[in-house]
Formats: sequence, C-alpha cells, structure tokens
Amino acid sequence: MAHFADTLLEAVARKGAPVCVGIDPVVERLPGKAVDPADPEACVDAIFEFVTKVLQAVAELVPAVKFQSACFERFGPDGVQAYHSLIAEARSMDLLVVGDVKRGDIGSTAEHYAAAALLDPPGDDDAAAPDSITINSYFGRDGVEPFVNVAAQHGKGVFALVRTSNPGGDAIQSLVLKDGRTVAEAVGALIAQFGEAHVGESGFSLLGAVVGATKPGDAAKLRSIMPRQIFLVPGFGAQGGSADDVRACFNSDGQGALITASRSITYAFQKDAADWTTAVRDAAIEFRDQVNAILA
Amino acid sequence: MAHFADTLLEAVARKGAPVCVGIDPVVERLPGKAVDPADPEACVDAIFEFVTKVLQAVAELVPAVKFQSACFERFGPDGVQAYHSLIAEARSMDLLVVGDVKRGDIGSTAEHYAAAALLDPPGDDDAAAPDSITINSYFGRDGVEPFVNVAAQHGKGVFALVRTSNPGGDAIQSLVLKDGRTVAEAVGALIAQFGEAHVGESGFSLLGAVVGATKPGDAAKLRSIMPRQIFLVPGFGAQGGSADDVRACFNSDGQGALITASRSITYAFQKDAADWTTAVRDAAIEFRDQVNAILA
Repeated sequence: MAHFADTLLEAVARKGAPVCVGIDPVVERLPGKAVDPADPEACVDAIFEFVTKVLQAVAELVPAVKFQSACFERFGPDGVQAYHSLIAEARSMDLLVVGDVKRGDIGSTAEHYAAAALLDPPGDDDAAAPDSITINSYFGRDGVEPFVNVAAQHGKGVFALVRTSNPGGDAIQSLVLKDGRTVAEAVGALIAQFGEAHVGESGFSLLGAVVGATKPGDAAKLRSIMPRQIFLVPGFGAQGGSADDVRACFNSDGQGALITASRSITYAFQKDAADWTTAVRDAAIEFRDQVNAILA
Repeated sequence: MAHFADTLLEAVARKGAPVCVGIDPVVERLPGKAVDPADPEACVDAIFEFVTKVLQAVAELVPAVKFQSACFERFGPDGVQAYHSLIAEARSMDLLVVGDVKRGDIGSTAEHYAAAALLDPPGDDDAAAPDSITINSYFGRDGVEPFVNVAAQHGKGVFALVRTSNPGGDAIQSLVLKDGRTVAEAVGALIAQFGEAHVGESGFSLLGAVVGATKPGDAAKLRSIMPRQIFLVPGFGAQGGSADDVRACFNSDGQGALITASRSITYAFQKDAADWTTAVRDAAIEFRDQVNAILA
C-alpha cells in the first residue's frame, strides 16, 4: 500500500503543478438555467452535472481536487450520496480527492467520523471516499490520532487545521503564549509531533496541516515548525494570498504544499456562457502557471 | 418564535432535572442478537430499533437527548436518514435534541453546514433537524456567527466547543497566554461576546458552550467568563467528572447547565438482558437524582 504523502507528491510531479481545485457547488452560481432552490432533487441533479463537467475540465491539469462537503450535506442523504458518487468520478479521472469535512471529536467518536469520512461507504460500488480529509485540532492528541490511525491503515491522509485563512481566525490563532509562541505555532508543533510516526519515503507525513496563505509571515514560521507536514493552502485567489506567502508554504526544494483555489476557478465564467467549461479550464491553466511562476 | 435558551430552561424545569442523555449507538454494544458489522442495512435497522427504545425509556425523565452524528454518518446516506428520522421521533416524544456534529467552517461554507445541521432536511416529512448543534470555535467570529445567525432565524441553539473533556485537550486548551489567561478562557471570552446579541428572556444566550466536567477548577472560571452561556457538560459518568466540577457549571441560582451522560445510561444493561430498557430507565433515574443532589 502506497503512503499518502508519496502518492500525492508523485501526482504533483506527474501533473506538473502543486495545485488543487476546490469544489464548492452552490446552486445560485451554476451556469445555464436557474434551478429552484426549494427543489432539493433538482438542486442535487444540477450540482451533479456541474461538478462532473468541472472535473472533466480540470482532470488533466491538476493532481487533486477538494470537495467542500457542506455544499452536499445541506441536501440531506441525496446530497451525501452525490458527494460520494462524484468522488468516485474524480478518482476514476486520476484525481486525488481531499474531503474538506473539518470533522473533529475524541476517542471512539473520532473513529466513527474517521470511518465515515475516509472509508468507502458500504454497499455502493459507485460511491467512494476521498483520499484525505481535513480535521480540527482543538482536541489535541486524542482528537487527532484516531483519524491518523484509520488513515495509516488505508493509505490515506489527514490535514489538521493549524492556521485558517479567515480574518476571524486571528482572535484565537494569533494569541501570544507566555513562551512567545502563537496558539497556531503551538498547535503546529503538536501536529508535527503527532505526525512523526507516519513519514513516507518522500520525507513527508500522512498528517499534513491546513495553513492559510493570507497571513503574511506566518507560513514561513509554520514551515520551520512542521518540516514534515504537507501544507494544504487555501486562500489563493478569491481570499487574496500573496506570492511570497504562497512561496513560504513550500520547503527550500519547492516541495510540500498543495495550493488550493476554488471559486476563482469553478465560477470563472459568465452566467450565460455556453462554453463555460472552457473558462473553467483556462482559469485552471492560469492558476497552475501562477503557482509554478512563484516556485520558479 | 420561542428563544432556544428559554425553551430549554422551561423544559428543564418541567422535566425536573438539567440533564441530557447522549445517544452514541455502536452496533457491537447493542442488546440481543449480534448484528453483522459488515451489513450496513442490518446495522442501521438495529440502531434504529435500539435508539427508538432508548428514547421511549427516557422521554419522561429528561428534557433533552444528544445525538452523536458520527455514529450515524459512518453508515452513509442510510445512516444520515436514520439520524434525521430518529430526531423526528425524539421531538415527537417531547424531547429537545442536541445534534452533536462539531461542525466548523467559515463564511458561506459555515452557512451551508448550519443549514445542513439545523434545518429540517428538504422533502421528507418524517425527518427533522435537531434543536441545537455543537460547533467548533477555532475559526473565531466568522466561523461562529453564520451558525448563530441561522439558529437565531429558526429559534434554535448552538454550543461552541470551549473546554473539552478529553485528556489531550489540555495540550492546547490549557496553554497560558502572555496575559495570564488560558486558551480556553480566551475562547470563552470570545463566545461570551459573540452571544451577547442573542440573549432570551431567561438571561441566557442561544449561543452556549461545551465545557467538560473533568477539569477541576476550570468550570468555575469559565462560568464567570460566560455568565450568559448555557453549558453543555459532557464527561459525567463514563469520563469521571466530579460533583464539585458539575456544580460549578451552574450559576448561583442553579441554572444554566445541561449535564450529559451517554454510555453509562444507554449501555446500562447486561448484554443478554431481556428487560434491558428497564436498566436504561433506572440508570437515567439515578443520573437525574445524582445531578439534582449536587444542586440541592
């Protein structure tokens, strides 16, 4: 069984860019005819069609996609089914999938979430689980290890929230401790420690970290605290991360980060455009080029 | 539309105890014949039957139940459907329901999670959403407010994680800041602030806090920092919270906390007991009596 970090870095090398397209489907923003938001079946059908076409448009260009599970969960069991079917679609197109579920709990409950989020749903051959998921770190070791253990048994990966890209995150994550570290740095040090036992041949752990690219200076510090974590980096594009901040998420070899853009790619079309998938494809190419230019 | 905090405190007064039974169904622990864990349909059916009987056993005795959503999500869409159907059952038995989903995200994604977790699933009359949910606090204001806003619009409540009951939580939540506060106290102060605009006639906010009863001394400090938060208190029973710690979760009037016990009640039977629901009922009565004795 391949190690998650090795698989991911190999896919990045093969596709030629350390980037990930975020899939956050919202009915109101879909191309073409308006869908009645009060008709859940029509919504799920429209989302299914949209995401399938987005996946087809970007599959050759990027190693990974990130599914925002909230956008599916809001439609109840049918939405959850669509989430798993579309993940199966993505995987059949040679895409790695991050399930952005941000789950978190402790002990046996964390094991249930890990099973729910990382293992293929039972009894449905057309449904698949993602290769990796995002989790919360606030519970400490007994909140992180159950996810890491399930991931290790199944060749999967986990990205723990360390530094989020939103403005409000500062009120907690930038608080300064008595020892001079920020809360995010202290959380990062714990994640580095929890991931130590799970390092692959690439030198990276299956336990990675979510590190927003919108906080100047933070990424470089967190990179030094977490040398073996792959950084999943939201905040490029719509949320306005800078080139320097993005560069600092990689190590000196230009390895170890996966930069994510979502709405700036998947909604890169005019509402009435007949050829909207071309606009999505072009935006994905531009995103690849921007990130590769930062690394050049 | 009634305010969540008022509804909850009224239910506590009517049922005569500030207690909540946690529903964490695990197939391996169910009474009666063994169920094949590899047969998801059989698992969901068995869980449905078990939880229905537990609800019937405790409905007269307690104001609220807490559903651990991970235990249902792990069975995919069928599990999610059972979760919502059983919540509808619980509500029809005059029980308030906490959905222990521990969701968290920012902005529009948080709105999707809030809709998914707090609003009745579309298109199914036999399915209901819980009256309140648990959420993560690590994102700060823009991670909490979307949940609070959806809750406010629909008469529902939110419990934000402040101090968890597990041993590992200390490594983050007990870190001491430069200003002398712990991380949990700083998070508590933010939650108090975010909830200020949503206080009901009872004097409590619809934004409550999860505060474990396993950390001696913490509860009293957090009670003073969050005078308007209802505390959802796990850790009584199986996790070993003490009477003093539980007492400190209430204000001086003996108001403002909901003490939760899960496995010590729902699995209070011998595996082969024919009358297992009697054991569950007796354990719920004992739990009520213990908490009321602490408050006496």
